[in-house]
Amino acid sequence: MFDMGIHVIAELFGVDPERISRVDPLRRVLEKVVSRSGLRVVHSAYHQFEPRGVSGFYLLRESHLSVHTWPEHEYVAVDIFTCGSGNAAIRALELLVMELRPRYVRRKIIRRDPFE
Amino acid sequence: MFDMGIHVIAELFGVDPERISRVDPLRRVLEKVVSRSGLRVVHSAYHQFEPRGVSGFYLLRESHLSVHTWPEHEYVAVDIFTCGSGNAAIRALELLVMELRPRYVRRKIIRRDPFE
Repeated sequence: MFDMGIHVIAELFGVDPERISRVDPLRRVLEKVVSRSGLRVVHSAYHQFEPRGVSGFYLLRESHLSVHTWPEHEYVAVDIFTCGSGNAAIRALELLVMELRPRYVRRKIIRRDPFE
Repeated sequence: MFDMGIHVIAELFGVDPERISRVDPLRRVLEKVVSRSGLRVVHSAYHQFEPRGVSGFYLLRESHLSVHTWPEHEYVAVDIFTCGSGNAAIRALELLVMELRPRYVRRKIIRRDPFE
């Protein structure tokens, strides 16, 4: 039995560059978001871009969560793809927005599953 | 200067389950796809689901590429998010489709960048 897949695609605009320039502070935020939303981590990885900017990725039992930041544009691209409860994906985005406090969020939700 | 971000979201239907059940054969396909499309890998990780099914993720200098497979539904969910040349993302999907030979592909391309 296949539970519906939900892919939340979000653009966060107007984020304080201090919050998203380096791996460590962003990792602390993401770890909190992932654990509080009940997502189950299989593997995670981060990459520091120089002079600034971070990519972070969580391989989840439910699929994946990723963030890519462009501090110079105060911009974060977020993907949260979950199979099973879509609520966890929505909840994770809400928590991330509370933590990063963007001025503006553009959000798209796509259903993804094997049923054409 | 920010190059346009392109996110290719693709659903592959009717894929031979043998090709997508275990990590190793799928990893061989993905390694070929990533290297031939000119994407630059920062980190990669795979997860084997039991009794079958694979998640694979590439953190790229250009952003990320992920696949999640559901062999029991002959289904693969693909994401290729690249900043810089969108051609590499399109090329990677074409190569992946040639390798996995799905019966049907549904593809969406989303522009993602800091320009509201």
